[in-house]
Amino acid sequence: MTSPVHIEGLLLTPLGIIEDERGAVLHMLRSDAPEFTRFGECYFSEVNPGAIKAWKRHRVQTQNLAVPVGRIRVAVYDARPDSRSHGHWEVIEMGRPDAYARLSIPPQLWYGFMGLGTAAALVANCADAPHDPGESESLAPGALDAQALELLRVGCRAP
Amino acid sequence: MTSPVHIEGLLLTPLGIIEDERGAVLHMLRSDAPEFTRFGECYFSEVNPGAIKAWKRHRVQTQNLAVPVGRIRVAVYDARPDSRSHGHWEVIEMGRPDAYARLSIPPQLWYGFMGLGTAAALVANCADAPHDPGESESLAPGALDAQALELLRVGCRAP
Repeated sequence: MTSPVHIEGLLLTPLGIIEDERGAVLHMLRSDAPEFTRFGECYFSEVNPGAIKAWKRHRVQTQNLAVPVGRIRVAVYDARPDSRSHGHWEVIEMGRPDAYARLSIPPQLWYGFMGLGTAAALVANCADAPHDPGESESLAPGALDAQALELLRVGCRAP
Repeated sequence: MTSPVHIEGLLLTPLGIIEDERGAVLHMLRSDAPEFTRFGECYFSEVNPGAIKAWKRHRVQTQNLAVPVGRIRVAVYDARPDSRSHGHWEVIEMGRPDAYARLSIPPQLWYGFMGLGTAAALVANCADAPHDPGESESLAPGALDAQALELLRVGCRAP
């Protein structure tokens, strides 16, 4: 049950939540899932309400993101010269209660996110390679494209 | 920097938190960590304040638990007949802000946890095998041992 999104290679896979009065159990990634390739590192990134963590682009690492606590808006930009979706943006809300899913971001895509709601969100990442500072590039929130920050802030662009 | 605890094979490994005004980054598990064996499944378990999730014992699966949100008390009991720590209990508080660590629980140990504080805690588990319902046993909170539930509730046993 993987929902393709418009950017080539970007995958949004709905994940299960098993409700329980003691606290829910939330699926993330299994080694026998069709989307699983390999395990590199799992880590967490808190995102305070209104805070922006953007922009990042990895050369070889694939990100597998899920938001088990709170809610974020993610924006992804395809600057790959040979991609069929070159120049395309995708904006996705992720998190609880109705948008719990795994977003797989292949290498070479720019991405960033903003914390929504009134409490910190937690982004979990099961990347396919361990963190290597020489493997990624970063840009300041306003440095990618004139409308990119607006897209991240409000989820749409001015006409 | 792995801290051995008293139960044979139980490992508590302090994990890094990289503070950031936008929200911290929290380490969990890397494929090149000395404690890493293999990746089976990553999932999350919420634990509401005062809620108890206990007791569970896996036949073959190793749990790797971290608590990136909130705080829990974990109790572990060694019922392995051939263990040097047979009959031993271990009680560990895990979570933010000062006890962020990874607890590796090898197979055959009984374990359970209780949510502390005033908000739900999130337990992340990077287990070494995908979930298999035939691979584990469960007991109700009061069914393991006369003092086990007290240990989980208050962290110590009556003399």
